Amino acid sequence: MSDIHFDISSLHAAYRAGVNVGEIIDTVHARIGSADDPGIFIQLASKAQMLAEAGKLGPFDPVAKPLWGVPFAVKDNIDVAGMPTTAACAEYAYVPETDATVVARLKAAGALVVGKTNLDQFATGLVGVRTPYPIPRNAVDASLVPGGSSSGSAVATARGIVSFALGTDTAGSGRIPAGLNNIVGLKPTVGALSAAGVVPACRTLDCVSVFALTVDDAYAVFSVAAARDAADPYSRDIAVQQLAARPPVLSVGIPAKADLKFFGDAAMQAGFGTSLAMLAQLGCRLVEIPFGDFYATANLLYEGAWVAERYAAIRDFMEANEAAMHPVTRTIIGGARALSAADAFRGLYALQAYKAKLAPVIGSVDLFCVPTAPTHYTAAAVLANPVETNSRLGTYTNFVNLLDMCGIAVPTGKRDDGLPMSVTLLAPAGCDALTAALARDLHAASGLSLGATGWPHPGPQPAAAPASDGMIDLVVVGAHLSGMPLSGQLNQLGAQFLRATRTAAAYKLYALADQSVPKPGLIRVADGGVRIDVEVWRLEPEAFGRFVAAIPAPLGIGTVELDDGTPAKGFLVETAGLDGACDISSFGGWRRFVARAKDMTDQSDQRQNRPVGIPI
Amino acid sequence: MSDIHFDISSLHAAYRAGVNVGEIIDTVHARIGSADDPGIFIQLASKAQMLAEAGKLGPFDPVAKPLWGVPFAVKDNIDVAGMPTTAACAEYAYVPETDATVVARLKAAGALVVGKTNLDQFATGLVGVRTPYPIPRNAVDASLVPGGSSSGSAVATARGIVSFALGTDTAGSGRIPAGLNNIVGLKPTVGALSAAGVVPACRTLDCVSVFALTVDDAYAVFSVAAARDAADPYSRDIAVQQLAARPPVLSVGIPAKADLKFFGDAAMQAGFGTSLAMLAQLGCRLVEIPFGDFYATANLLYEGAWVAERYAAIRDFMEANEAAMHPVTRTIIGGARALSAADAFRGLYALQAYKAKLAPVIGSVDLFCVPTAPTHYTAAAVLANPVETNSRLGTYTNFVNLLDMCGIAVPTGKRDDGLPMSVTLLAPAGCDALTAALARDLHAASGLSLGATGWPHPGPQPAAAPASDGMIDLVVVGAHLSGMPLSGQLNQLGAQFLRATRTAAAYKLYALADQSVPKPGLIRVADGGVRIDVEVWRLEPEAFGRFVAAIPAPLGIGTVELDDGTPAKGFLVETAGLDGACDISSFGGWRRFVARAKDMTDQSDQRQNRPVGIPI
Repeated sequence: MSDIHFDISSLHAAYRAGVNVGEIIDTVHARIGSADDPGIFIQLASKAQMLAEAGKLGPFDPVAKPLWGVPFAVKDNIDVAGMPTTAACAEYAYVPETDATVVARLKAAGALVVGKTNLDQFATGLVGVRTPYPIPRNAVDASLVPGGSSSGSAVATARGIVSFALGTDTAGSGRIPAGLNNIVGLKPTVGALSAAGVVPACRTLDCVSVFALTVDDAYAVFSVAAARDAADPYSRDIAVQQLAARPPVLSVGIPAKADLKFFGDAAMQAGFGTSLAMLAQLGCRLVEIPFGDFYATANLLYEGAWVAERYAAIRDFMEANEAAMHPVTRTIIGGARALSAADAFRGLYALQAYKAKLAPVIGSVDLFCVPTAPTHYTAAAVLANPVETNSRLGTYTNFVNLLDMCGIAVPTGKRDDGLPMSVTLLAPAGCDALTAALARDLHAASGLSLGATGWPHPGPQPAAAPASDGMIDLVVVGAHLSGMPLSGQLNQLGAQFLRATRTAAAYKLYALADQSVPKPGLIRVADGGVRIDVEVWRLEPEAFGRFVAAIPAPLGIGTVELDDGTPAKGFLVETAGLDGACDISSFGGWRRFVARAKDMTDQSDQRQNRPVGIPI
Repeated sequence: MSDIHFDISSLHAAYRAGVNVGEIIDTVHARIGSADDPGIFIQLASKAQMLAEAGKLGPFDPVAKPLWGVPFAVKDNIDVAGMPTTAACAEYAYVPETDATVVARLKAAGALVVGKTNLDQFATGLVGVRTPYPIPRNAVDASLVPGGSSSGSAVATARGIVSFALGTDTAGSGRIPAGLNNIVGLKPTVGALSAAGVVPACRTLDCVSVFALTVDDAYAVFSVAAARDAADPYSRDIAVQQLAARPPVLSVGIPAKADLKFFGDAAMQAGFGTSLAMLAQLGCRLVEIPFGDFYATANLLYEGAWVAERYAAIRDFMEANEAAMHPVTRTIIGGARALSAADAFRGLYALQAYKAKLAPVIGSVDLFCVPTAPTHYTAAAVLANPVETNSRLGTYTNFVNLLDMCGIAVPTGKRDDGLPMSVTLLAPAGCDALTAALARDLHAASGLSLGATGWPHPGPQPAAAPASDGMIDLVVVGAHLSGMPLSGQLNQLGAQFLRATRTAAAYKLYALADQSVPKPGLIRVADGGVRIDVEVWRLEPEAFGRFVAAIPAPLGIGTVELDDGTPAKGFLVETAGLDGACDISSFGGWRRFVARAKDMTDQSDQRQNRPVGIPI
């Protein structure tokens, strides 16, 4: 078996260097063999099936297919066409004819299905032992539970069998197993990834989630998978932002000391303290937040009406096949039979009350940091006390989907006893890029190797353009360039300087006539255009609106094409405003023209004693 | 008793002319006496109590207190401090110590509580006869049901006893009684008015609503009452816009002919046709919409899980006092006992599916127009067949809150048989100002007198110049003109239409090539420019910023000189974007060009059998 690392950048580097996809498929199967854990997969694609899929990809092209040749596993409550979906209950199984929407999107991006992974039956549980199949072993320490419900997906990723895996996450099933296996678990905003083709747990809360070895990989998979889907009524239009540099200073809410719960696990407590120190080191301002209402919200999930969603999802099956179910799962879901519709609405009212009460709390910081799990449990401990241990594992995860937050579990180090330490960053819906950006920095700072593989972190991928996060980028070309007479306007509006760059070679620059403050005008031309020096600033929409409203004719805001082909809003001039203007395109930019003009003026000033400092 | 008209402008004119508030209070009580209808009020404030309240108002000041000295009635499921709240069930009654939030806000604005009005018990019903108190008589025709559940509030308003009244509206209770009594019924966006201090019907859907004699009055009351309220977790931040001029062209969805239901009432059918003709006359473009999914959504309300909300609201009372309840109400709400929590979630899933399916349909037009009620019923007919008649009355109302739409019922004329004709305008959440603006024009066009009073309509109030106050005016010239394909973007951003005008005679207009949505480009020229038809819209800076940021090349926002010489921000096109564009300046505007092009396309359609109604 090859020793090629399966983080996506290493894998793609191998493909680029000539490695054949057949070798990768062989490696996948060799690693499945050497893992020697019959609990990971419920169903495997054969080498021949994988080769056939790979054969459809065409030549290696990571631009057209960003997941070209990337092997992945699918939790067995998510449909893969032609493979049985069991939800870890053989009697429930059916063979879907079509892929779940997310699987189809990942396949279209070049990813290769390795198999279907084990889970806590019907995705009910956080432990990974509630399955009639063999229990997957924790990849880091075989005595520990792997975490669930997405147990097999997490272990397959942590062992380097796959580059990434799909899980689902209603109560924490995409975060807990990541935290217990030293990998990244991205739990997207509810509705960002389609749940069409997924066996429901709680339809109002279910998320498809992503396990990966690095934050970059998890976010890349998320970006490919996310899309509004008419086949899922709970699907939402979430603008997937690029994973870019994060703001250097962030306020991070953390549970108030008195509200932290580790159930006696001092190593986890110490590890969380170390993680917070890392955040502070990264420029985060930590804010202690009382957590009682978050815990009270969490309690709604299993004590209240939402268990009825789990029952609603499998009612017909359960009424006919109750004996086929895992005894713990059967007991939990069966509890919903006693709940009335009025109970369900009372639960919804209670949630709405917490949502309203917590909205300003959640809005008071940029994001939150909590331990992913409060402690590690051995499989023996969980089997002895299945409900309480499970419930405790969900301390920091159960409230998240109820409150419509997104989250990412990220390894931050090893605890004093060598076991994995992980925190989860949480933020309001739609802020997936922000949590990922900070998680990436935390993971890098941890210095950890990946999962249970020993592979070094490949290093952060080249930062894409900074996250826009609702902000608007503005290309300035003249009097608003930094240090120029009107740049103060941008500072007053809270604008942030991003970078100096140039336009595409398609513009001319004119020095305008009759301006109180000297200004140029940029105009796109069909022929003879050149690159012009510009700066890109970033503004809040309101500030941008005020700024645009104050721009006098003949200037306006249109779309400027930058040197790298990307478009951005920026200053343009009306053709009708060029009367008497002078073509200064040959200078390549306003700053250079002004400097040159100033040279000449200075010389003239020395002769005429004119005040210095007024350009042309 | 004085003959002072109680629409707010007439009443305030009387105060301004020196009428004393005591005279108004005497008039209120005199009118209650002459109405001779013991079914309207369940509880009355005494003259002395009203005088004491009025004594706290200070001198007449309609600026500081826009409802100074305005008498109003309160549906008896809304708390008024010190008066029992019965919800039309004496055994349920309690005496609240504080006002409901909306009542407190109206009192603070100078309004005077006259009393608490009768209703269908626990606000369950649309008929107005499901009460243990005397049944209020329809104000227009005593043989007809008054409509419900807000029966007393509507009749008190229609008889001119009060200037306005509060109702509630879950399934249509704020619209049906308005439609049956020739008054205006404003059903705000869910959550715009606080439900704190209101006996719940369906907490996820309940709205406090406003009955008034004119649209201006209803909207003025709505504006005062609306505010986010921490005491109501379902309260929302809805920006209440000023009731200003509406866009001259609006696309209005109407039920497809085959989907219209009048249950054999030819007069209502004819009246609706007349109402649609009035809309067309007012510049609306009518678009037939299949209504099957709206009706299916409506069916969820009483056949599905939401009945359980009514049960949840009074469960403890009902289990102890079932015999005290109205028999029809008891039967309906009691049905919820058989519903499980899983049933409730299945209902929520069904609703979510309809919401997702209907969202693009609802977004395809600016607003909708439906009959308020499909027919009139006599009290005898309803008492003989209480459930079916009630259900039929809700044909055009039951789906509205489920789909998070706002609405306003407005009189449009008298039917052939002299009975009231009313339509309801509906729009997505937050568009209350838009529906009211069109309703105002419809009401004015009807030439009707007010309610059952015989008072003439006082005429539209001077349209407040929309507050400029940091707002930004935007000149649109093409696809964003009202009724054009992208005008919905402006509505969604909360933009307000200001006026239609023309540019200075200095522009040319081009039909651009290669646009997914056909668009023109406006460009200033030194010679040969003409005046081009434009519209001016007003936006918040943030909305303006977002709007500008989303404009694709070659369009941008510069400064447009208007016909009167004033400058405003507006759409311009880059000269470099005119490749392949066609100079259409001679048409004088995009709308005229499109109309001409459509004429030609329609002729072509007739040849090709293309479906009609799709605007190019």
